[in-house]
Amino acid sequence: MTHGTDSLSSVGEFGLIERIRRIIDPVAAAADPSGDLLLGISDDAAVYRPTPGRLQLLTTDMFVEGVHFDLTFMSMKHLGWKVMTAGLSDIAAMGALPRFATVGLSLPAKLTPVHVEEFYTGVAASMKEFRYAVAGGDTTASAGNMAVTVNVTGEADEKELRFRRGAVPGDYVCVTGHLGASVAALRILQREKQRYLDAKNRDEFRPELEPYAPALEKHLMPRPRLDIVKTARDGVRINSMIDISDGLASEVHHLCRESGTGARIFEHNLPVEAITQRIAAELGESPTTYALFGGEEYELLFTLSEGEFGKLERLTGDVTVVGRILEKAEGITYEREDGTAAPLVPLGWDHFRGRNGGGLQ
Amino acid sequence: MTHGTDSLSSVGEFGLIERIRRIIDPVAAAADPSGDLLLGISDDAAVYRPTPGRLQLLTTDMFVEGVHFDLTFMSMKHLGWKVMTAGLSDIAAMGALPRFATVGLSLPAKLTPVHVEEFYTGVAASMKEFRYAVAGGDTTASAGNMAVTVNVTGEADEKELRFRRGAVPGDYVCVTGHLGASVAALRILQREKQRYLDAKNRDEFRPELEPYAPALEKHLMPRPRLDIVKTARDGVRINSMIDISDGLASEVHHLCRESGTGARIFEHNLPVEAITQRIAAELGESPTTYALFGGEEYELLFTLSEGEFGKLERLTGDVTVVGRILEKAEGITYEREDGTAAPLVPLGWDHFRGRNGGGLQ
Repeated sequence: MTHGTDSLSSVGEFGLIERIRRIIDPVAAAADPSGDLLLGISDDAAVYRPTPGRLQLLTTDMFVEGVHFDLTFMSMKHLGWKVMTAGLSDIAAMGALPRFATVGLSLPAKLTPVHVEEFYTGVAASMKEFRYAVAGGDTTASAGNMAVTVNVTGEADEKELRFRRGAVPGDYVCVTGHLGASVAALRILQREKQRYLDAKNRDEFRPELEPYAPALEKHLMPRPRLDIVKTARDGVRINSMIDISDGLASEVHHLCRESGTGARIFEHNLPVEAITQRIAAELGESPTTYALFGGEEYELLFTLSEGEFGKLERLTGDVTVVGRILEKAEGITYEREDGTAAPLVPLGWDHFRGRNGGGLQ
Repeated sequence: MTHGTDSLSSVGEFGLIERIRRIIDPVAAAADPSGDLLLGISDDAAVYRPTPGRLQLLTTDMFVEGVHFDLTFMSMKHLGWKVMTAGLSDIAAMGALPRFATVGLSLPAKLTPVHVEEFYTGVAASMKEFRYAVAGGDTTASAGNMAVTVNVTGEADEKELRFRRGAVPGDYVCVTGHLGASVAALRILQREKQRYLDAKNRDEFRPELEPYAPALEKHLMPRPRLDIVKTARDGVRINSMIDISDGLASEVHHLCRESGTGARIFEHNLPVEAITQRIAAELGESPTTYALFGGEEYELLFTLSEGEFGKLERLTGDVTVVGRILEKAEGITYEREDGTAAPLVPLGWDHFRGRNGGGLQ
């Protein structure tokens, strides 16, 4: 389609909804083979049949241009994928699986219908990959920046649910996947943006991104860890769980606060990939800082007993023990590679940056 | 509480959530006597038990400062009430009743925790009045204007559901309540804002609002028509339904488009209150224009057969026949009081204003 010159106001609300439906509806139908979505995009509300006997979950996440994303270095397609990941990851963190979603878009006049189509192409790719259906939403004008709201519903049986509360002293503290790659990629994107802004001839500027592709993929197309939820849901008793959206340090604090415990994280156990270490070295920064304070990982942080960890380890190789749950009085600390310990400050990456490197005291 | 000088960043995310929970949680518990909300504000997602055998509904609405609301003449408490009404009204328009909700807030730095508390005081008043529970949400910073997203879940049996599609030629076109008061009040608020801006001494300026109180209440604290849904759900067969958020003319078009019909609206049947007529006269504007093109009424527009209307009329006096559904080929028109007819242009109030009064051709 070549509608690149249409404006949002010229295609109107109905025109825009029609274009969204052309992208979403076929994928939604495929993601709902049981036909439980009785009414998708078209009326005042979505209508669906819940699976009998199962609990329903609903999570809401809001993303604001200039706070949560920068369209200078994120395509609309990646944005569509990534905001859905945030909602799906919340459902995963509860031990549940996703079913339906709605999306709210607030669009400044600088954007065109093609941008909206690109956004929904990313959403559709996520739907196809993770088997859920976007069933409605809202699209409005914005007087300022772009904003996106994502709502995802999920289902779980009561015994499958996992909460932030529930960690027990002695528990292993585990994470899925690797840490720090997302913020490492962000640092590269920020550097390249600055190089672009400083370039004498911006038209000829080409960002140098190829060498960082594995990290960039983690940043631009993060995957919710529904696979781990499926792997663990039958045979492994996880005591507490949360997803890592604001950074490991911050989420350890959330989990300990709700559980009434302390914890110790071990620097030498943090799973950091080679690409992340390479970026940190190149920028003269610390991979440990990335791993502890970098956000938008969408990996899972969870705790379980040593015995249950043994069971999980036999089912998947993609989990790492990064610490232990302690009594509350022992505080929340991290142990450096040299064996010294320090309080683990509950700061996300943005706060950390704002404090000029004061995060690691 | 006197936290008026705290900033959003000084109380932090947890401090803010704590304040919200103090307002919301007690009311939520009272609105959920069956204890179906297993997990409200506190974790990655809300968890609730659906009523066995009933279908689930989900609606999402987004509101942006400067597009949908103006904090100059809307208090945070009224805003909280009103955005919830929009979501509840979508649920009502489907023939369903609300159960749970989530709220996303994107807050610019100019706002304080007290503003957020005031907003949630309005939300809590709505919860108490209409018996549903806010169960979660998201609160983020905004780089620009304030934005709000409201998601409301509802339940209905399949036979209770009402759709936009379903109108049949010959149907009566009905509305609940009265029309035009909300936009009439907006016109007064706009006039008073201009008087404030023009005032020599703004500190001493007092807006003149008292005489318009009934219209202002409709504008600032509109009520979703869940009462009519309850009244009609057992004995009356409604063929199609939609709520009036963008204005009667616009919604008639939506309903006819989905139903594949035409319609004629009769000017002399439009239910307009005395206060609305008085404001129109005072401002030299047309009460019919208010009734046809004024938005944010949150009344219901629905169609049903003459026989079913007879049944409904015996149950409630708060519905008015404003037109008839016609064959599609007959178009969508309105008949003036003098008997002449014209096409009914599907414009909302804002578009209408933008066209310098061109809405009523």
